Amino acid sequence: MNVAIVGATGAVGIEALRILEQRRFPIDELRLFASPRSAGTRLSFRGRGLDVAPLSPACFDGIDLAFFAAGAAVSRDYGPLVIRAGAVVIDNSSAFRMAPDVPLVVPEINPDALRRGAPLIANPNCSTIILLMAVAPLHRVARVRRVVVSTYQAVSGAGRQAMRELEDQSRAALDGRPVEPRVLPHVCAFNLFSHNSDIGADGANVEERKMAEETRKILADDGIGVAATCIRVPVMRAHSESILLEFERPLSPEQAREILSAAPGVRVVDDRAANRFPMPIEAAGGDEVLVGRLRSDPSRGDGRGLLLFACGDQLRKGAALNAVQVAEHLPLPGPRISKAVAQ
Amino acid sequence: MNVAIVGATGAVGIEALRILEQRRFPIDELRLFASPRSAGTRLSFRGRGLDVAPLSPACFDGIDLAFFAAGAAVSRDYGPLVIRAGAVVIDNSSAFRMAPDVPLVVPEINPDALRRGAPLIANPNCSTIILLMAVAPLHRVARVRRVVVSTYQAVSGAGRQAMRELEDQSRAALDGRPVEPRVLPHVCAFNLFSHNSDIGADGANVEERKMAEETRKILADDGIGVAATCIRVPVMRAHSESILLEFERPLSPEQAREILSAAPGVRVVDDRAANRFPMPIEAAGGDEVLVGRLRSDPSRGDGRGLLLFACGDQLRKGAALNAVQVAEHLPLPGPRISKAVAQ
Repeated sequence: MNVAIVGATGAVGIEALRILEQRRFPIDELRLFASPRSAGTRLSFRGRGLDVAPLSPACFDGIDLAFFAAGAAVSRDYGPLVIRAGAVVIDNSSAFRMAPDVPLVVPEINPDALRRGAPLIANPNCSTIILLMAVAPLHRVARVRRVVVSTYQAVSGAGRQAMRELEDQSRAALDGRPVEPRVLPHVCAFNLFSHNSDIGADGANVEERKMAEETRKILADDGIGVAATCIRVPVMRAHSESILLEFERPLSPEQAREILSAAPGVRVVDDRAANRFPMPIEAAGGDEVLVGRLRSDPSRGDGRGLLLFACGDQLRKGAALNAVQVAEHLPLPGPRISKAVAQ
Repeated sequence: MNVAIVGATGAVGIEALRILEQRRFPIDELRLFASPRSAGTRLSFRGRGLDVAPLSPACFDGIDLAFFAAGAAVSRDYGPLVIRAGAVVIDNSSAFRMAPDVPLVVPEINPDALRRGAPLIANPNCSTIILLMAVAPLHRVARVRRVVVSTYQAVSGAGRQAMRELEDQSRAALDGRPVEPRVLPHVCAFNLFSHNSDIGADGANVEERKMAEETRKILADDGIGVAATCIRVPVMRAHSESILLEFERPLSPEQAREILSAAPGVRVVDDRAANRFPMPIEAAGGDEVLVGRLRSDPSRGDGRGLLLFACGDQLRKGAALNAVQVAEHLPLPGPRISKAVAQ
């Protein structure tokens, strides 16, 4: 298969490259693209150096599969063109996620959505993926009616430069030097702030709206209410989420633990005696979403409320790993099918 | 008035000293006490150096008012003794908070609880104070029935050594040196973890239980359900809280904003256009609890749900400032009244 990565020098692009290598994804030719500013960079893949080329419409001749990780504008500009050139697009951006005919897929949760042979598959928002890895297995058993979630989001979600900014600001703060936000809108070192996305008339920011809408689409259940509060914290690359669930049917913490212990891609970390629960430094670099702090909601007494805490690597399961897993689930020869759909 | 601070060299003790100075609290003599390990330190008060003495039962002769900020064990050992010596105790520890005859007071919220002339007044848990500064004004109008809160707690809550640990670990992590937790049970630099207090049979940790029980006691309403999740984040000294409230009567975000704008000790920071909301670095060092992200709970459509986000300085309003405010509210000559009560 001939594969392209668009946005190869970004945090998600670099992670995608590593994951394709680690998972021995079948690749004949790999082409890497980035903005003119980052083009010319040389990245290593399977022991060989690959030059990153600037993106142009002619780049996709002969490409079967293209990963897009360069933001919504690039996906909107190039996605349709790449599909017309005959490739399947797996898009990490939000550009097409809510389009009715675009599958929005977490392979452990809704692999069936892939069967349609769509030419473009959207990778969900990172916070949504991590939330649903913990929620979907429970939803199947007891039917979630309401989600209240507060996030503790790593700076990696704002890209590689935001990660460097957290490092630089932390050094400056420790040395007593002035700390100036450049990439993120507010100081991130030893601070936290409401997610840096636009706020709508209802007071929700874009990240919170994504979590609500994408949850309903992926679980194919418009009756799920979602109250999300998205907060950035000075953590490098794993998101954490404090989650309250309300179910249609009672579900005990013990049942939840059993269900989650058997769920693929989930690891239960819930050692009360040792006070050991999911932590971002233990989720970072790993493939699993860690889930713990399982307990009954003490604010309602009917056994239908559950509290839990989850951490997942934002760049891996939250983005690049999920995209590669989607590619692994594509019905082969997917690209040939999709070509017909695109025309 | 003759005043003592027990635990004067700790994070809260040092802050109490500063606040007594800043607020020109009427003091004839000030005596500072600490553990034998910290005794001998010299601290400045109103331009004079004061020696910190080791704690002993004879220390409280002639003392009218004693601030305790040295942990529950010291309060249990020395509190009754100091009361018998004729002083009023304002105790920052959890030792006596839930005792039925001990007032648990946030002066802006339940000053009436002070009128009984009790010899010991308990200062509430820091997370609870910050929560209730935002919640109580709304409760008065629409009656809170349920609180779902996730905290983002600064390391200062674990004391001065934990604050130094965050600095040291951050430096080590940035330099690529190994990071070893010593004071806190887990790595705090660029990480977060479930609050380091014991977990009970219901799965709640002690901090979460405090938030529930103290909320009901301070608001004098046993019908309030509280689902708290307490998390430590790499922030120095201001706690943040993501709060969902359910009310008996509908309350719009606009009404909530108006109520909170008029609430003493609260500052509304809620600029949607500029994406500017409460942040710990802006709450740190200040007296006000910052409240923002006011919006209707999108997961229920009956106007009885409200989301908000609050930040407050853990060492000031969360501890030392509240204690000094309690002292300012004591009916004078409080110590004389209390002496009779203690006997």
